[in-house]
Order: sequence, then C-alpha cells, then structure tokens
Amino acid sequence: MKPDEIEALSFKIIDEEAGEHRFSPHEWNIVRRMIHTSADFEYMDTVRFHPKAIEAGLKAIRSGKAIITDTEMARVGIRKKELEYFKSSVTCFIHAPSIVKSAGASGMTRAQAAVDAAIPFMENGIYVVGNAPTALLRLLELVKEGKARPALIIGLPVGFVNAAESKAALIETDYPHISNIGRKGGSNLAAGVVNALLKMATQK
Amino acid sequence: MKPDEIEALSFKIIDEEAGEHRFSPHEWNIVRRMIHTSADFEYMDTVRFHPKAIEAGLKAIRSGKAIITDTEMARVGIRKKELEYFKSSVTCFIHAPSIVKSAGASGMTRAQAAVDAAIPFMENGIYVVGNAPTALLRLLELVKEGKARPALIIGLPVGFVNAAESKAALIETDYPHISNIGRKGGSNLAAGVVNALLKMATQK
Repeated sequence: MKPDEIEALSFKIIDEEAGEHRFSPHEWNIVRRMIHTSADFEYMDTVRFHPKAIEAGLKAIRSGKAIITDTEMARVGIRKKELEYFKSSVTCFIHAPSIVKSAGASGMTRAQAAVDAAIPFMENGIYVVGNAPTALLRLLELVKEGKARPALIIGLPVGFVNAAESKAALIETDYPHISNIGRKGGSNLAAGVVNALLKMATQK
Repeated sequence: MKPDEIEALSFKIIDEEAGEHRFSPHEWNIVRRMIHTSADFEYMDTVRFHPKAIEAGLKAIRSGKAIITDTEMARVGIRKKELEYFKSSVTCFIHAPSIVKSAGASGMTRAQAAVDAAIPFMENGIYVVGNAPTALLRLLELVKEGKARPALIIGLPVGFVNAAESKAALIETDYPHISNIGRKGGSNLAAGVVNALLKMATQK
C-alpha cells in the first residue's frame, strides 16, 4: 500500500471505531487526525473548539499568515507542501540565539522569551503550543494585554505541571482556540491539528 | 520554576501516581520518560524491553555510534547536548533527494528506501522508528538477512495499519529492542526513549 492508501484506510478504521460523535465535519477532520497521530480515542472526549476557531485558522492559512510553533518537533511535523501552496511559513524561535540571550537576561524561560519574540510575526496568524505550558500562559498574558493578536491559538501542551491548567485557562477565554482538557497533548498532536487545517484549506 | 525543576517535579508526580511496577531502575528511567512525553500511563503495561536492550543502547551511545531515525520529528526531538558529548550524531534520511529518487524507481515507500540507505551507518548504532510500520518491517527483513546490524532497535510506530503488527514482529525476535504492544507510539515517544538513554549514558 502507498502512504496515501494507508492514511485512507486508517481514517476508515477510526471512523468505524469512533461511531457517532458530537463533532461537525470540519471538527471531525481535526479530531480524526489527532486520533491518527496518537492512536488515542480519548481526544474525542477532551478536545475543545472555540466556535470561530476553524474559520479563523482557515482564513489565516489561506491569507498566507505565519504559523509559529513552540517546538522544533511541531515545526518539522507541519506539512511543507500545503504551506508553500499558500505562501505561508512555519517558524520556531526556541533555538534563536537572541532568545537564549534575552531569556538569560530577563529571568524568563526560553519558551516564554520565544513568545515575546514572535509578537510581530503572529498577527492574524496561528500560534501553536505543543509542549510548554509556560509558553501558553505567556501567550495568554500578551493576548489579554492586547499586545499579541494571533487569529487562532492551538494550545496542546502535554505534561504534569501546568499543562492542564494552562489549557483550562485558554478554554475559558473567548479567544479562538483549539485545545483539550487534561494532561495529554504534544507537539505531534499540535502539528496534526495544523496539518488537518492545511488539508481543509486546500478544499473548497 | 526553571525547566529542570519542572521536569523533576513531573517525574516525582509520575513516580507517585505509578506506584509499584515491574521495571528495573534503568527500565523505569525510560518508561517514566515515555509517560512524561505522553501523559499516558498505559505505557506501563505495554512497553517491552529485550533483556540486552538498555546495555546495547548505552554502549552504542558511549561509543559515539550513529542514531538513525525514520522521521524528522524524532530527529529534532533528540537532545543535542548529550549527543555532542559522546561525539554521536542523529540522522534521518527520509527527505534526502537520493531517497525520493530510489523510492520512485524501486516501488518502495520512502520510509522503506530510507532504511536501505541507512545500512552502512546503522552498524552497532541505534535505529529509531517512531512513525512508519513499513520502515520497521523493512528493517526486520534486513536484520534477518544479516544485511543490517544495529545494536538496538527502538520500534514505536503509531497507527492503525500495521503499527501493532510490526511491533509484535519485532518483540518476537531475539534482537535487542525497546518497543510496545498495540497501536500507540510516535516520534515523540521514540525520541523520549533515546533521550532517557542519553541521560543514563552520562551517568556511571
């Protein structure tokens, strides 16, 4: 089987095993991709969509706005073919020398400093957090202060310290977001959500 | 909290919630890292270690042998600091132009062709499969034919088509491996296993 055929068969299996669900067709494209990435059906219960999230994400992609990720893993996991089609790009600031320097000087973590550095680039774009709760919490601060204005926040940090709390804080806001309840998540999941949006953006 | 402190607290929480378990201290370093990466305690039940796996992995790392991954996500997820310390390196062939070409010519998938291309580099090193069952199945073929001789296979492909089957085939062998039962896995998990080994390799 070719990779495309394997993916189609995987989606068919997921559809069958998932059965009936609460998602719109657009939302299901994203949740199904998350299940495909993790083989974990728990996301069916825990994923949360802001009502304007998908529309905002598709508009950002189709307008060629930047996608910013908190990790290199999320960055490399995002499909380049569709990005090129929309003349969009994906950037991660975590290893930029200026970040390492400003994090040291300010007492912020690198994950936090990378959010601040991304402010000019994220305007009307998509901010993707797959790993660091500190990055998501810093982004929420900047958004509340009106200093950062991404069109969509994909917030899926994973872990045992503040991951669930940072996502709960995101879900509480009226800011367009795709996120989930609980500790699970990850850069691979976050990249998967972007890839599902990219695929949808190429369709009508 | 600094990142190191967050990690230490995460490990403490995992230790507490995991309670008693069947793993040796070395094995637990790896399983705990997998839980840290995924927030999924199911790995406690599903991970499988070949009895010589950890020893083989530590020896490969300390000897500066190459680490080969099937995905860019796994490659960038592996800690560079410890790799440099051991004068080791991590390589992924999936996007190499020669792979794209030979996959097209031979009818193999790129994931399969990338395994063949890695044969000269994997000798006594570590082969990491975090995504493609086809890569793991091809690697097992080459190993059985005596054509490929990595010291350790980390086999954690994820998904609904042949992921569980390819890992079951690996676990059946007497070849040093770290793998798991079932559909779950992923490049982030696979990178986490390597990172746990790298950390251990720096200790006595």
